[in-house]
Amino acid sequence: MKEKVRIIEVGPRDGLQNEKKALDQSVRIELIKKLVDAGIKRIEIGAFVSPQWVPQMAGSLDLTKQILRMQSQGQIAKDIKFSCLVPNVRGMEDALKSGIQEVAIFGACSETFSKKNINCSIAESFIRFRQVLEMAHYHKIKVRGYLSTAFGCPYEGRIDESRVIRLVKTMFKYGVYEVSIGDTVGVATPKQVESLLKKVKRVAPLNKIAMHFHDTRGTSLANVYASYNLGVRAFDTSVGGLGGCPYAKGASGNLATEDLVYMLKGMGIPLHADLEKLIGIKKWLEDKFERELPSRVGKAGIPKGFE
Amino acid sequence: MKEKVRIIEVGPRDGLQNEKKALDQSVRIELIKKLVDAGIKRIEIGAFVSPQWVPQMAGSLDLTKQILRMQSQGQIAKDIKFSCLVPNVRGMEDALKSGIQEVAIFGACSETFSKKNINCSIAESFIRFRQVLEMAHYHKIKVRGYLSTAFGCPYEGRIDESRVIRLVKTMFKYGVYEVSIGDTVGVATPKQVESLLKKVKRVAPLNKIAMHFHDTRGTSLANVYASYNLGVRAFDTSVGGLGGCPYAKGASGNLATEDLVYMLKGMGIPLHADLEKLIGIKKWLEDKFERELPSRVGKAGIPKGFE
Repeated sequence: MKEKVRIIEVGPRDGLQNEKKALDQSVRIELIKKLVDAGIKRIEIGAFVSPQWVPQMAGSLDLTKQILRMQSQGQIAKDIKFSCLVPNVRGMEDALKSGIQEVAIFGACSETFSKKNINCSIAESFIRFRQVLEMAHYHKIKVRGYLSTAFGCPYEGRIDESRVIRLVKTMFKYGVYEVSIGDTVGVATPKQVESLLKKVKRVAPLNKIAMHFHDTRGTSLANVYASYNLGVRAFDTSVGGLGGCPYAKGASGNLATEDLVYMLKGMGIPLHADLEKLIGIKKWLEDKFERELPSRVGKAGIPKGFE
Repeated sequence: MKEKVRIIEVGPRDGLQNEKKALDQSVRIELIKKLVDAGIKRIEIGAFVSPQWVPQMAGSLDLTKQILRMQSQGQIAKDIKFSCLVPNVRGMEDALKSGIQEVAIFGACSETFSKKNINCSIAESFIRFRQVLEMAHYHKIKVRGYLSTAFGCPYEGRIDESRVIRLVKTMFKYGVYEVSIGDTVGVATPKQVESLLKKVKRVAPLNKIAMHFHDTRGTSLANVYASYNLGVRAFDTSVGGLGGCPYAKGASGNLATEDLVYMLKGMGIPLHADLEKLIGIKKWLEDKFERELPSRVGKAGIPKGFE
């Protein structure tokens, strides 16, 4: 079955990175295997960053090697696509050592957010991206581009659409195969999403765009729905809603994978993802973190007569 | 300013009725006054039911008299519309005593839910509705009709659309001025909502329909958005998400008023409702109930640069 919607699971990277408690590598590997078992086909499994900066991602090189070994040995199906976040040339070197076939670069649409989050201006970050992309392409590695704070910034507020469009355009010009547009602080509403996507459409086909929504204000599934109606077919989610929101204490962050799967399946869209298994992973993670995760379907359960 | 979307605040009735702890009448009155101060124009303030069955609604007759007196004395603006739930002729007698100009009747689309929730079959409930409506019309009182479990039932699962359509049609035939279609257990997804509303449209104009969504599985704002796109302009909400979900422990129930207001204002729809004041009411209620309420915007706050 060819899936009509691509789900990109970012829990093992984006999710874990935003949790205070760092999980052991063996637990991270178990999480990835559980996600594969739950029918997820694309997973961001780590980040080649300094463990001083991001202890939660420490050992991503070894983790990636182990996951890819399992895949080459047939323990993980060949059709599962893994990727890792790569901030710079140094990280790209680890990517090459790991043997991973896809990497992701992470940029911001807000100048202030860029400085506070990746410690450089947007312009400087794009210079790094170019270097990473040149290396990646030389080694036939696919690159995915993130554009965070595309709708709002915790420091700058609303973000100018024209800036987002310019950055989307530049990322594709640099040779990324997909751009993930992120509502990092969960402020977007459907009309904003439609307005931006209609402009994005002029510079890139929407089948090359992924939307990365946060459920901080409960609008993420409405935004998914608006994006879907315009032709977007790729969405980033985090199992259990792992990650939380660093900018609003106790609030939800990443849209939970099971919440997206619930809505899409409820809309009659065929997916490999197994809702019950995803809810099982959410509960398993709650034990690991000793806290409740924000996933809604995970809490409410699958209703009688669903599917 | 004429509002493009009508918000029907059901917190003081539907919300409080589903909270274990019953609030003192003085606190219920304070809540209603706070909602008026926050710009809410339609509020369901009580239910003329037996206090044995619903202790949270005890004293609704006296409460309604007090609220209407305040309004007649000019302490509450004339344009605010209040209503009370009326299950039967006995309740309608109280409505007449209270002097309220609008009442609501509550039915279900699921036979099992009807028996368990209002203790009679759907057919029996409609006989009661007819009696209530005859009395109401004789006294020139407007009647609103609720149809709960329109998308799913905790006991029966999926509900047949044709049954919902038939009941909507009958309620209008009986003379209600508005039907509120409820996703009582929060299972609906946007495509289901569209499918049902397109059929409803054949038997009633959508400007006479209100949608009553529960955020149990995070889909309520997506469902609001789908309904809005089809022309629905009235939505029931509960401040703070008051009420919870009796069918999924710890899960959200009623869509929070502030979450709806956030999305609609974010979509550029003018509303009298004051987001900050609504969030203030949510916090005030959390003190009263000594528990956190599920409202998302109430937790995350109003983002920088909003409006």
